[in-house]
Amino acid sequence: MDSLKNLEQLIVKNRSYRRFYESERISEENLKSWVNLARQSASARNMQTLKYMLLTQESDCDKMFPLLSWAGYLEDWQGAEKGERPSAYIVVLNDNSLSEQYFSDDGIASQSILLGATSSGYGGCIVVAVKHKPLREWLKIPQEYKIIQVIALGKPKEQVVLEALPQNGDYKYWRDSEGVHHVPKRSLDEIILNNVNSR
Amino acid sequence: MDSLKNLEQLIVKNRSYRRFYESERISEENLKSWVNLARQSASARNMQTLKYMLLTQESDCDKMFPLLSWAGYLEDWQGAEKGERPSAYIVVLNDNSLSEQYFSDDGIASQSILLGATSSGYGGCIVVAVKHKPLREWLKIPQEYKIIQVIALGKPKEQVVLEALPQNGDYKYWRDSEGVHHVPKRSLDEIILNNVNSR
Repeated sequence: MDSLKNLEQLIVKNRSYRRFYESERISEENLKSWVNLARQSASARNMQTLKYMLLTQESDCDKMFPLLSWAGYLEDWQGAEKGERPSAYIVVLNDNSLSEQYFSDDGIASQSILLGATSSGYGGCIVVAVKHKPLREWLKIPQEYKIIQVIALGKPKEQVVLEALPQNGDYKYWRDSEGVHHVPKRSLDEIILNNVNSR
Repeated sequence: MDSLKNLEQLIVKNRSYRRFYESERISEENLKSWVNLARQSASARNMQTLKYMLLTQESDCDKMFPLLSWAGYLEDWQGAEKGERPSAYIVVLNDNSLSEQYFSDDGIASQSILLGATSSGYGGCIVVAVKHKPLREWLKIPQEYKIIQVIALGKPKEQVVLEALPQNGDYKYWRDSEGVHHVPKRSLDEIILNNVNSR
């Protein structure tokens, strides 16, 4: 990584993608290389309580897909059709036997994984709305592992653009008639509370 | 960002630094450019509930330092001496008036900020052990803002190395007689639960 500008390009490219070229499969080695980024990232008290399950086979992906809810704001859309679905998943778990408290490790790890996927030419989406019970039963996830979220991954097949929040302040993402996904982002002025230095 | 390899180098370089060249100040523009990375990162339901306060002035940094607890595992060390302390801080808040639930946004944002700092030649440390009451009173943080964590930033003045967990499984970081900070990391085999594909 050479510069802030390169990093910013990567972060902007790393959008939440929900439609993919499903036939472009992702290897387990790819997933491991991205989890390895999470592994080398910061961890609160260095406890490293997060654990991961990797799914790449089409039959497993077919089972995972209906356990996830997609894009709550797109009311007319129930998720990608077959052919445009994710081609791999990473289940992010917390090993409660080590500690139930993982502070912000989940986001740190997920951001590292998704930046890795993006830098490898893929993309993905963090899904929190997961049907825990059937997922736990299917993957035989022991009770001491808390299901935090699932990262869906694939070769992106949609355009996602960032834009300013509209006048009415509506932050909901939306999809236009061309299928472009629009994501309104608050301004820097809105999220930086005040200039402490000029008090 | 060109490749996974470059990203991995950045992620490995982005360690939790706790000693800095305090006289190397960080500009507010620097901090804003890093918060701008967080702004453009993923947010659950795109609600973007996180807010930030920026501190760069030496007098403010002097007030912030005693409100933070440093490196719990280094029992003989109460934090950096004057001259080696952070030269800027970002207070990460959640705007509960938007939503009390921010999922993993805190970690996503903090990772983006710290990768930004690292790519700009700086470094930092996420501090969760913060004296909330005096911080809230001093910075006049309204009650509807939850204090999540503080990111301490500066020009790193210490060497931090990642290494494998020792045989006894002790994950605590430690500092050797040369002042090098050692961080044991679990192996990829330990954190990837099982090969779902080979069940």
